Amino acid sequence: MPRTAITLTTDFGQSSPYVAAMKGAILSINPEVNLVDLTHTIPPQNVRQGALALADAALRFPLGTIHVAVVDPGVGTARGLIYARLAGHDFVCPDNGLLSRLCRQHRPERIVRLTDPRHWAERVSATFHGRDIMGPVAARLSLGLSPAELGPPQASLVELEWSEAIVVPGKVTGAVESIDSFGNLITNITAAQMAACRDLGEKVRIECDEHETFGIFRTYGDVPAMTFVAIIGSTDRLELAITGENAAEMLRIRVGAPVEVKW
Amino acid sequence: MPRTAITLTTDFGQSSPYVAAMKGAILSINPEVNLVDLTHTIPPQNVRQGALALADAALRFPLGTIHVAVVDPGVGTARGLIYARLAGHDFVCPDNGLLSRLCRQHRPERIVRLTDPRHWAERVSATFHGRDIMGPVAARLSLGLSPAELGPPQASLVELEWSEAIVVPGKVTGAVESIDSFGNLITNITAAQMAACRDLGEKVRIECDEHETFGIFRTYGDVPAMTFVAIIGSTDRLELAITGENAAEMLRIRVGAPVEVKW
Amino acid sequence: MPRTAITLTTDFGQSSPYVAAMKGAILSINPEVNLVDLTHTIPPQNVRQGALALADAALRFPLGTIHVAVVDPGVGTARGLIYARLAGHDFVCPDNGLLSRLCRQHRPERIVRLTDPRHWAERVSATFHGRDIMGPVAARLSLGLSPAELGPPQASLVELEWSEAIVVPGKVTGAVESIDSFGNLITNITAAQMAACRDLGEKVRIECDEHETFGIFRTYGDVPAMTFVAIIGSTDRLELAITGENAAEMLRIRVGAPVEVKW
Repeated sequence: MPRTAITLTTDFGQSSPYVAAMKGAILSINPEVNLVDLTHTIPPQNVRQGALALADAALRFPLGTIHVAVVDPGVGTARGLIYARLAGHDFVCPDNGLLSRLCRQHRPERIVRLTDPRHWAERVSATFHGRDIMGPVAARLSLGLSPAELGPPQASLVELEWSEAIVVPGKVTGAVESIDSFGNLITNITAAQMAACRDLGEKVRIECDEHETFGIFRTYGDVPAMTFVAIIGSTDRLELAITGENAAEMLRIRVGAPVEVKW
Repeated sequence: MPRTAITLTTDFGQSSPYVAAMKGAILSINPEVNLVDLTHTIPPQNVRQGALALADAALRFPLGTIHVAVVDPGVGTARGLIYARLAGHDFVCPDNGLLSRLCRQHRPERIVRLTDPRHWAERVSATFHGRDIMGPVAARLSLGLSPAELGPPQASLVELEWSEAIVVPGKVTGAVESIDSFGNLITNITAAQMAACRDLGEKVRIECDEHETFGIFRTYGDVPAMTFVAIIGSTDRLELAITGENAAEMLRIRVGAPVEVKW
Repeated sequence: MPRTAITLTTDFGQSSPYVAAMKGAILSINPEVNLVDLTHTIPPQNVRQGALALADAALRFPLGTIHVAVVDPGVGTARGLIYARLAGHDFVCPDNGLLSRLCRQHRPERIVRLTDPRHWAERVSATFHGRDIMGPVAARLSLGLSPAELGPPQASLVELEWSEAIVVPGKVTGAVESIDSFGNLITNITAAQMAACRDLGEKVRIECDEHETFGIFRTYGDVPAMTFVAIIGSTDRLELAITGENAAEMLRIRVGAPVEVKW
């Protein structure tokens, strides 16, 4: 049997001992599991950015991977914890919208609310359910525990609103949705939404805040250094960058900035 | 036989190639070992913070885990390197107080001084004993080498002073001992020390520097956002936080700040 | 068969979901491989620093380790991607000089240009060849694919210029080549180049920018705190440090600063 991977997505900060405590709790139950960090640098309590990171990376892992996501401002309150299966992957996380971005494309096949404390740590703190509930549950799932044992089924998940880019003839209107570690601006405008202008070259004008550029390029290296450039990024969305530089810092653009594509 | 885990705790900085060099040295001896980062963001040469991280996370790992800790301002000088066993876990580190926090609760069952160079790298640098001595020793222990082979037994370990909170009727006096990645202030006041005031609600007053709050809450989500709140944290110590914010930054509180609980 | 390790070296930034996407792509092909981060904090698009990190850490891993390095400002352009074998290790990276530092000491035994898309992701983005080409190729190599299948042989690799320190009687002239996470200044002056002055004690004078120190010490702990000190570091090169402090920040010294050793 191949080794199951458990990925971890948190806002604990890189190299936090809290991450280590979760890993210890998981390995104490299943020392054979393959722990992989998805990311730990979600901005504190930013459920939306957590949801985007999961949507961008989780399904790249093998089918059957278990993803634990702990961005949990409501820890210890009445918010639910859930197991969900979608697209052949297993997820364990708070029911606070962390899966809502993935759910736009993949309907959950099964949702179970975590209520049975037999599968948790013996003593559960009020402030660290990643270590005391979600980690142990993921570890037991990796050993073959049936999700049905975890608690009662649940019909749906908490949704967050994700504003979709709007397409009208000759124009797509969207926004910057996230900023990557290079300072590239990732928008909510998809390649499909720009299909009509794909071959129009520099007749296509892209605006973001007061900045503009012309044409959609294939890759950063196709334009000179220090150029403000639009490309279709690796997640099939419109991306704005300054070649060789950090666009977000140079142009002081933040998540939420409006983006328009016109032709 | 389950795969042994070796955890690594250093002040090398996140993602340092020095960490990679240590991992390479370990895997070159035992490619099957399961390497897990405990943390690499101990402030440079801060043995006390290293000791706290080990105390908070090491014993969460499976029994038999080997923990290598390299916060080593005295590298290459006469300071000793040791193997110690405590609470069913194995530790390899400089004898500079890194285990002194764990030792408050767990007496070492065995201490061995690392003196036999047969178990080290062939060539030992004067400035990187993590890669050249401690890593290789941990790797050989994971293959079953007996600690007795490493060197002579040693009776005790270097101690650091850990100021304990002081309890008098109606009052506990302590201090901020560490600050986590959320900016929460972790104190040296234990849940047990506050047992007398647990049910007194808002009659309990908590002061830290010139800031105060009333009542001990279960979790962050039990109070409104932006509230300065006291809770019992996930390591069973009093923790002060501002819900949804970074308390250490907002209130400019540092490690060592005085904390008083009165009722 | 022992588990093959694949190391990852990138400029994606610590804890980037891009790293996770690469790991997912690799594990989807070989779930048994042992993924190890070499470093992800190469400054964006800084091929030289990537080359130095590989030279310092890659060969510490077991023979047969596969190293994937993605510092790739030319992604999607005509720059080649290559497989190279040197010193018993396998490398997969852009042909942009990333191996040129290692190649100063180790001649590549074999170079193959990656041209056969059968071993890549089904759909290859123009901006993320780490996830879509290099990661999958490394994963298939770890399963035993012959490098000959990847594409045609190539005779040589792109070289970067590495300025060597210059030795004349009584003097070595070099430069700061990198700065580590402690702020120590790592120079391009090797221990061998300083053999003539090894035993001259404080008659040796070391200058860096307008700062100077006398004598080459064994280790940081051999001098008082806050001393500007020269030692032979763990990679056998001259290193300048301020004991207990961050020399690069305190003295505002950058990569490229001139260094002279005189006696």
